[in-house]
Amino acid sequence: MKKRIITISREFGSGGRTIGKRVAEELGIHCYDKELIEKLAEKTGFSERYIEEQGEYAPTSHPFSYAFVGRNIDGMSVSDYLWNEQRKKILEIANQEPCVIVGRCADYILREREDVLNVFVHAPKEIRAKRIVEVYGETSVAPEKRLRDKDKKRAINYRYYTEQEWGRAQNYHLTLDSSAFGIEGCVELLCGIARRE
Amino acid sequence: MKKRIITISREFGSGGRTIGKRVAEELGIHCYDKELIEKLAEKTGFSERYIEEQGEYAPTSHPFSYAFVGRNIDGMSVSDYLWNEQRKKILEIANQEPCVIVGRCADYILREREDVLNVFVHAPKEIRAKRIVEVYGETSVAPEKRLRDKDKKRAINYRYYTEQEWGRAQNYHLTLDSSAFGIEGCVELLCGIARRE
Repeated sequence: MKKRIITISREFGSGGRTIGKRVAEELGIHCYDKELIEKLAEKTGFSERYIEEQGEYAPTSHPFSYAFVGRNIDGMSVSDYLWNEQRKKILEIANQEPCVIVGRCADYILREREDVLNVFVHAPKEIRAKRIVEVYGETSVAPEKRLRDKDKKRAINYRYYTEQEWGRAQNYHLTLDSSAFGIEGCVELLCGIARRE
Repeated sequence: MKKRIITISREFGSGGRTIGKRVAEELGIHCYDKELIEKLAEKTGFSERYIEEQGEYAPTSHPFSYAFVGRNIDGMSVSDYLWNEQRKKILEIANQEPCVIVGRCADYILREREDVLNVFVHAPKEIRAKRIVEVYGETSVAPEKRLRDKDKKRAINYRYYTEQEWGRAQNYHLTLDSSAFGIEGCVELLCGIARRE
């Protein structure tokens, strides 16, 4: 079965986002990452930053999320509303064109399709800590804590919406340690698979 | 860094053992699986079957392991003694020659080396259930239960000796769903990596 869509889940700082972008470039297809957030912002009226942050929180970690934004949409919490809009958008995109989708539980959302290759990218903590400082700059928070916080939020969000465990090999067709292959090594591997399948 | 050694951990029925054998054949190197058990049997005097079974039990699941075999070797339980001998043998083999090693926590035992590629092979339950009946034949136990029991034993054994979680993507450089790529697809992928790295 030809894989038309590649979803990339990734540990913070593993280079998964860069790998997704580069794979899409090489294959001449779209990479949905920031673009997905832009489309959602346009549709829902929320700011891109707010949507990006919501994508990493489960509603349970926002007990007052109604109060925070001061509204409740169609009887749903804001998180659930955004999840729903995002889900619809991802299903729509997948029907339209071959593409790469980074994050946003796309692996789970597209689980019924047989033309999807689900990939998880990770790397050892010390390498990710170094990389986030290089890519995103230093902050007052130690890089190790930034990694821990972000990965924890992603794991909680993923579990909340998918009832699966984030980073469990069995949820993905392929997982890659980007430090073993290098960013470009991962890109080559994934393009090889996409071209052959 | 050139990867000289490929370790393959695998869910029961995922085809990991076959993949290991085929990769070794293609690369013209040895595959240690049954051979490792033969070597241990020769060295320790235990039967191959007993060693194979011990490799899937943690000592805690054998509270009377001393009593069963009626001896205690160098102050160690039989499981620990076999683990130790196996560990020494795996370290020795890795020093001698490029090879594929299937199971036996070789990924963990060789964790200090930089020339090792650690792979985990899995597949959905229903596909594995079908495969074990085809490969190993039917037994009085339902295939789903055979899978559950064997995977559980492997997970316990792995956790006992490595303090890591079996099947967690982060423990491996690469994990593969053999049902997505097919056995030969996995072989091609791994040979491609071994030849390129």
